[in-house]
Amino acid sequence: MNENHAPGLHLLIDFWGAHQPTGLDQVETLLRAAAEACGARVLEVRLHGFGDGGGITGVAILAESHISLHTWPERDFIALDIFLCGDRDTAPALKILKDGLSPKHVQVSELRRGHNRNRT
Amino acid sequence: MNENHAPGLHLLIDFWGAHQPTGLDQVETLLRAAAEACGARVLEVRLHGFGDGGGITGVAILAESHISLHTWPERDFIALDIFLCGDRDTAPALKILKDGLSPKHVQVSELRRGHNRNRT
Repeated sequence: MNENHAPGLHLLIDFWGAHQPTGLDQVETLLRAAAEACGARVLEVRLHGFGDGGGITGVAILAESHISLHTWPERDFIALDIFLCGDRDTAPALKILKDGLSPKHVQVSELRRGHNRNRT
Repeated sequence: MNENHAPGLHLLIDFWGAHQPTGLDQVETLLRAAAEACGARVLEVRLHGFGDGGGITGVAILAESHISLHTWPERDFIALDIFLCGDRDTAPALKILKDGLSPKHVQVSELRRGHNRNRT
């Protein structure tokens, strides 16, 4: 195993004051566009709505890992994550998500996965 | 919005030297057990195998967010994440995953989601 070669980059993304999507079709289109902007292959998109005003939760499962989305309309909050294995750039996906949801405030935490095997 | 109330805790979990699952049924059972150990409600589990020796990727979609699993048998590596909204304790899920996959080395990064709205 090459310890210097990471399986990939994982972004945890918090959006506040974003456009809250209400339709599952809209979210699926957005997640597919985000994945495809990075050249990732979508295996499937699975989404669940919690009814009027109740938010949406789900994930795009990728050959290169996943992009998830969970909305809390009542808190004006959306949590997303982008995990892409290999050397793929996550920035195009983040841009698509920002452009699609127009958050007023953004917090991104970035972790490289598959490093530090000796930090147990 | 109460800025002190987090939507939830997100664990990014790297396993090295773990038992590499080969069957989707085995992984589904494990993810369901992990979710249920935290009192989370599984909406569905969706998994994909990449053929002999090619790893498994997928997610348990929860009413309380998600648990994902991506395996790299060729790198002796498994990446998981547990994202549970509300005040649910993620420790029981992590214990189930460790017990089920028996990693030799573990790296866990813990992030509280939905904080720091002003850190843009």
